[in-house]
Amino acid sequence: MAYELYYWPTIQGRGEFIRLALEAAGADYVDVARGAKADGQGVGVMMRLMNDPALAHPPFAPPFLKDGDVLVAQTANILAYLGPRLGLEPKDEAGAVFTRQLALTIADVAAEAHDTHHPIAVSLYYKDQKPEAARRAKEFRDDRIGKFMGYFERVLDAGPSGGEFLVGQALTYADLGLFQTIEGLRYAFPKTMQINEHSWPKSVALHDRVAASPKIAAYLASPRRVAFNEDDLFRHYPELDQA
Amino acid sequence: MAYELYYWPTIQGRGEFIRLALEAAGADYVDVARGAKADGQGVGVMMRLMNDPALAHPPFAPPFLKDGDVLVAQTANILAYLGPRLGLEPKDEAGAVFTRQLALTIADVAAEAHDTHHPIAVSLYYKDQKPEAARRAKEFRDDRIGKFMGYFERVLDAGPSGGEFLVGQALTYADLGLFQTIEGLRYAFPKTMQINEHSWPKSVALHDRVAASPKIAAYLASPRRVAFNEDDLFRHYPELDQA
Repeated sequence: MAYELYYWPTIQGRGEFIRLALEAAGADYVDVARGAKADGQGVGVMMRLMNDPALAHPPFAPPFLKDGDVLVAQTANILAYLGPRLGLEPKDEAGAVFTRQLALTIADVAAEAHDTHHPIAVSLYYKDQKPEAARRAKEFRDDRIGKFMGYFERVLDAGPSGGEFLVGQALTYADLGLFQTIEGLRYAFPKTMQINEHSWPKSVALHDRVAASPKIAAYLASPRRVAFNEDDLFRHYPELDQA
Repeated sequence: MAYELYYWPTIQGRGEFIRLALEAAGADYVDVARGAKADGQGVGVMMRLMNDPALAHPPFAPPFLKDGDVLVAQTANILAYLGPRLGLEPKDEAGAVFTRQLALTIADVAAEAHDTHHPIAVSLYYKDQKPEAARRAKEFRDDRIGKFMGYFERVLDAGPSGGEFLVGQALTYADLGLFQTIEGLRYAFPKTMQINEHSWPKSVALHDRVAASPKIAAYLASPRRVAFNEDDLFRHYPELDQA
């Protein structure tokens, strides 16, 4: 039976980390909220399921995944659930645990990137928190991007694959997450990334290998990949990038 | 062999979720950074381990846990590692996955509570981001606390235990996390909580049962429990609470 992914249909957002894992594994899945109402899909179906008072294990928010009777929410938790099923984490416990640890650190980068344009409240528009966004974005550019990216580079330096993979000797969802992180940072902060990327050569090379891998390359070229946009987690506001 | 917990010694912070799990289970553990230099412990030992270039699985930041040869970081990931070992999650996969999902949502509350006093940057003092903190705290008080707490109340309403536990029919680390969330929110936002707590009766009752359980009551009364303070994740600044 196909996995059912539930996420906002017009953004990459946190759901993109799940989409990339499903796509890299060639898994059978339905991106339910992007489907047509006539096919019993769409955002309304997602909202009704999420708000169903009969749910024993309700999600707090999208993304969530339905696998038969099991409903799983929280991005890193969905990835941990899919990891062994899709062959995207090592079989040894220490390796699987480290993959989850990296996915959580990647989720932290995404949350901080989001807060550069929404430092005050998710319920307000960007235009209503621009001065605060300018301050937070500067700190993120000057301090946090380098701290996070330097960490991933350190992990690639320390690993057994010579920098080919973050964990062990094969592709994991952590690698897909680092690919998406670099994609998003490049979209949101192109000047900052252009100036600093040379400091993280193994991370950039990993990004390029993931982008060129057949299943991911096909996905990125397909209409299933939502384009970056300014309703998304990573947003390009030139005033928030390096001058 | 005793678990070794590594976390900042003078705050509860994210490490407190781990301490509570270890204490509730009566586990043998060493809170390494709180120990004496003469005993080969202390913050210096933590920093040296974290920054050791030979580490195959380095942490990005404390807390991290050492269990023999295994090093685990990221709070929710440490809890997922300890859950089955300490008997603090259900044995069925769907229940274990839901426990992890709730721990991640609890981590989101903690991160948002932290950002009420640090909306711009962790590298700056609160006094350097007070106007932004006032705005963010208002949104957190008016919108986010109710959304999160209403969710946990919904989970307690929907569960099989009649509201006694968040997951299944026994104590999990999610229950301990909800206890700590309410403790922290009460410390940071006493007026807001006093006005609103009646809306979440099952959550408050769960908090009270956890606080009164023998192992946790003994822990809270011991010097092992760090007192709340204004270097911590939850901070009481009266100007950030309801007027």
